Amino acid sequence: TLQHLFKEIFKAGLELQKDDHRKALLVSRKKKPEDTVVEVKGVKIGDGSQNFIVGPCAVESYEQVAQVAQAAKAQGIKLLRGGAFKPRTSPYDFQGLGLEGLKILKRVGDEFDMAIISEIINPADIEVACDYVDVIQIGARNMQNFELLKAAGAVKKPVLLKRGLAATIDEFINAAEYIISQGNDQIILCERGIRTYEKATRNTLDISAVPILKKETHLPVFVDVTHSTGRKDLLLPTAKAALAIGADGVMAEVHPDPAVALSDAAQQMDIDEFNEFITELRSHYAYKS
Amino acid sequence: TLQHLFKEIFKAGLELQKDDHRKALLVSRKKKPEDTVVEVKGVKIGDGSQNFIVGPCAVESYEQVAQVAQAAKAQGIKLLRGGAFKPRTSPYDFQGLGLEGLKILKRVGDEFDMAIISEIINPADIEVACDYVDVIQIGARNMQNFELLKAAGAVKKPVLLKRGLAATIDEFINAAEYIISQGNDQIILCERGIRTYEKATRNTLDISAVPILKKETHLPVFVDVTHSTGRKDLLLPTAKAALAIGADGVMAEVHPDPAVALSDAAQQMDIDEFNEFITELRSHYAYKS
Amino acid sequence: TLQHLFKEIFKAGLELQKDDHRKALLVSRKKKPEDTVVEVKGVKIGDGSQNFIVGPCAVESYEQVAQVAQAAKAQGIKLLRGGAFKPRTSPYDFQGLGLEGLKILKRVGDEFDMAIISEIINPADIEVACDYVDVIQIGARNMQNFELLKAAGAVKKPVLLKRGLAATIDEFINAAEYIISQGNDQIILCERGIRTYEKATRNTLDISAVPILKKETHLPVFVDVTHSTGRKDLLLPTAKAALAIGADGVMAEVHPDPAVALSDAAQQMDIDEFNEFITELRSHYAYKS
Amino acid sequence: TLQHLFKEIFKAGLELQKDDHRKALLVSRKKKPEDTVVEVKGVKIGDGSQNFIVGPCAVESYEQVAQVAQAAKAQGIKLLRGGAFKPRTSPYDFQGLGLEGLKILKRVGDEFDMAIISEIINPADIEVACDYVDVIQIGARNMQNFELLKAAGAVKKPVLLKRGLAATIDEFINAAEYIISQGNDQIILCERGIRTYEKATRNTLDISAVPILKKETHLPVFVDVTHSTGRKDLLLPTAKAALAIGADGVMAEVHPDPAVALSDAAQQMDIDEFNEFITELRSHYAYKS
Repeated sequence: TLQHLFKEIFKAGLELQKDDHRKALLVSRKKKPEDTVVEVKGVKIGDGSQNFIVGPCAVESYEQVAQVAQAAKAQGIKLLRGGAFKPRTSPYDFQGLGLEGLKILKRVGDEFDMAIISEIINPADIEVACDYVDVIQIGARNMQNFELLKAAGAVKKPVLLKRGLAATIDEFINAAEYIISQGNDQIILCERGIRTYEKATRNTLDISAVPILKKETHLPVFVDVTHSTGRKDLLLPTAKAALAIGADGVMAEVHPDPAVALSDAAQQMDIDEFNEFITELRSHYAYKS
Repeated sequence: TLQHLFKEIFKAGLELQKDDHRKALLVSRKKKPEDTVVEVKGVKIGDGSQNFIVGPCAVESYEQVAQVAQAAKAQGIKLLRGGAFKPRTSPYDFQGLGLEGLKILKRVGDEFDMAIISEIINPADIEVACDYVDVIQIGARNMQNFELLKAAGAVKKPVLLKRGLAATIDEFINAAEYIISQGNDQIILCERGIRTYEKATRNTLDISAVPILKKETHLPVFVDVTHSTGRKDLLLPTAKAALAIGADGVMAEVHPDPAVALSDAAQQMDIDEFNEFITELRSHYAYKS
Repeated sequence: TLQHLFKEIFKAGLELQKDDHRKALLVSRKKKPEDTVVEVKGVKIGDGSQNFIVGPCAVESYEQVAQVAQAAKAQGIKLLRGGAFKPRTSPYDFQGLGLEGLKILKRVGDEFDMAIISEIINPADIEVACDYVDVIQIGARNMQNFELLKAAGAVKKPVLLKRGLAATIDEFINAAEYIISQGNDQIILCERGIRTYEKATRNTLDISAVPILKKETHLPVFVDVTHSTGRKDLLLPTAKAALAIGADGVMAEVHPDPAVALSDAAQQMDIDEFNEFITELRSHYAYKS
Repeated sequence: TLQHLFKEIFKAGLELQKDDHRKALLVSRKKKPEDTVVEVKGVKIGDGSQNFIVGPCAVESYEQVAQVAQAAKAQGIKLLRGGAFKPRTSPYDFQGLGLEGLKILKRVGDEFDMAIISEIINPADIEVACDYVDVIQIGARNMQNFELLKAAGAVKKPVLLKRGLAATIDEFINAAEYIISQGNDQIILCERGIRTYEKATRNTLDISAVPILKKETHLPVFVDVTHSTGRKDLLLPTAKAALAIGADGVMAEVHPDPAVALSDAAQQMDIDEFNEFITELRSHYAYKS
């Protein structure tokens, strides 16, 4: 066992090196103790305030997006999301309006003076997307699409990076490192539920990931309550939990008429539900938006 | 496909029956819309207030338990936990003091006028345990130990039932039904984290389970932040989330000297940490205890 | 970091001790290199032959059990299973015939000269069960019901121990250690699928667990193909895989008329299906039974 | 409840439509009952024979690849894998030789008359890759990189599609549908283990997926034993299980000197181990290669 002890000392040496390597991560708080603040059209994300990102799952028309934008604006929200490129399980499901969708988003963003967040799924589209969106979203299915991460790291646009369906927190942090290693440190992390055996919710919201990510990295952390739960009745309670645990903001889907939505019909709030949602949260939490 | 349609109608009929069956669950809110309030030594659990259950993982000595009781009492907490029968992965790990542990707990409970909560693991011990404890705990590993559930249902003591390591919410509710079906409706449900692929935390706190359980059943719901996370640095943030999402209370482990604890050394708070924990929560939440 | 290195050396020392502790497990191959052979009514389990355990999910009547016994006997199978005490998710589902069921099993076992395997769920029933069964089964939900494990370890009957729904292999091995540490080394381990996110099967058969258990312990290892998959169409292919990977045997449920079975109706084979199943396996594998 | 029954009939109607939709999948056996045979440089995959794909995790040099090719050829294996573009958790890990790696693979493939399989990770690289490889691999992390799937569907090269880390079988089948819907039906599915709570293996080999995929689709199905287990000692037993359950082939990593490998050092076989592996499998299984 003396031999074994030497082996262990050797292993400890290796572990030490690995540790140093980890310390070296540009996204880590060890590397940069102070919080990174991502600024988008005047909104500061990560400065201690708590913000909302809302909007429809998929862009369907100018009118649809504008209706949500108007309601959001009325609540003092300046961050608008909407999907133009939709990654869907089946190739026969609605795949989004593509570039047409980005144009609608930009028009609405300009008219309502709101920042636009939209998912990009092909590295080749990152550059052109920069002309239309204020924040590039990288979705859960693409969290380890490293070519996409590198492409997003090479431009000067904030990136909202969602945690993969079954990604560990360590893998999530390393995915963000792919972006920052290309020179772009304007990254917002977004917990959106992980895949577990439990089927009462669409995914299992890993609420503990929020304080862990805040501790391990200097990046702002959002919680997507819509995809975490997949249940309209859980949006409000999980948003309360997210704000209480220290998330920098909450993302939720809002659609003027969810029943006819081309995707995620069951889990989007309509405008009235959205207003109640925000009002209820405002009465409990002193967040700025 | 007409044939298929008839088959589906038949299946729908079956499903209807099953639904009725589910409606009939005694723990369900459909059966009893108003909240069940569990009263233990004057403390009302489930009446809208938010309470704490604290204490060491395992009872080790009278002095150890008394020290925690004193600190808890000073914070206005009246619910004291401590393990006398410890279910341990290995037969060679400390298995608890057994009946001796229950006696220590009772003595401390009497001296400090606190309610005692302790886990029972053998149906044969339920009756004698009633002489020593105010609340019988049924642990995660025994959530589907149906003989134990039935035995706990047959006595007149409140039961704190923990969710199994990999139990669905539906299985958890049915486990509570085993207790209530024997005549005992004084049940507190306790979410304590589920087993997933993520290893940054000991288990994954399924925070969404809280509002689901509150909606589906009329029983009070606690969150055990110690076992959910297994990390001392996450106790405070997850407790905030639990209180914000509407849990009826939080359970956490406290030990006068965690470093020498016979179990769970790494995750128990010492007295100072416990005081900070409660003070911090009090400054944010207007709970009664 | 020199300080850190010393810390690591200390940790390595601790790990070494833990390792020694693990080496000391009585079920481990390190402790006893040769295979344990469990002998039941003349059938040797674990001697390199491959056996079958078949029978209905639940005992419903003498006729039902006798019909399966006759078919099994005709195929040269001598190990008959049947549930008398049924752990069920809902308290309102059929809970088994209890002692009456054990009596039916014993009568059939005597008449057909077959060994009887049946699950016991209460430590208090272990002793009386010894009068009726040849092998005590401890089910998945009770794998960490340590009182039950200890009670089974204290008698002189072989024990078939099923892996828990979400138990790690390490926890499974330690559960067996609870039995052997009481003096009973006649233990058969049984992989029966683990709980994962995948819903195409009832559970996910962890086929790799078989060679790992064979390597880490000296105990025979069975695979329960019925509960692993919950699908009749997968019984044959998974049984082939289990025999190919070196399992000491396969367990499967057989019912004379699955459509009217009081539990697990969809996944039990009828007599004809059972005969095809065995014939097909016999044509490919040279097992003895 | 009459109202409810009508609702259920309506739901059944919807379900019927969905069913028809599913029937319409081009990869489904309902659409095409006979097996698809993928032919690569004279090797028929999916015709009832059982083949091997072997090679190093990552291409490091011509010599390294040639050594493995020689050993494989000597065993009658004609399918050679090697990674040129390596998706790695950390951006600071070895990312592969890229195009240089593809050139090495092509040279070895030409010299040894073997078919080359290599992973492509950027849709933009698919076309150029066609000049170098005989089979395009799409890795687990990219299983739902739909742009990559579409690009691979648009060329005339066979595609080996790996199941995602946490993909359901249904999602896996739909990912293949993305490829075939673009006109390319030369698809090989590859089970490579799923992410579960169990840590004794790197992933959990979902062996049941093989017969399910064979039943649901007309495509050949391989099992990657290296990534499923991450343990050299499990390669042989799991390969036996894969061949027994009816996989069309087995994929495994082989490296001339695993200890110095730039990735996956611990789990690759060296040449001697590889020869034993094949010899042992040959003695038990009558496969053609």
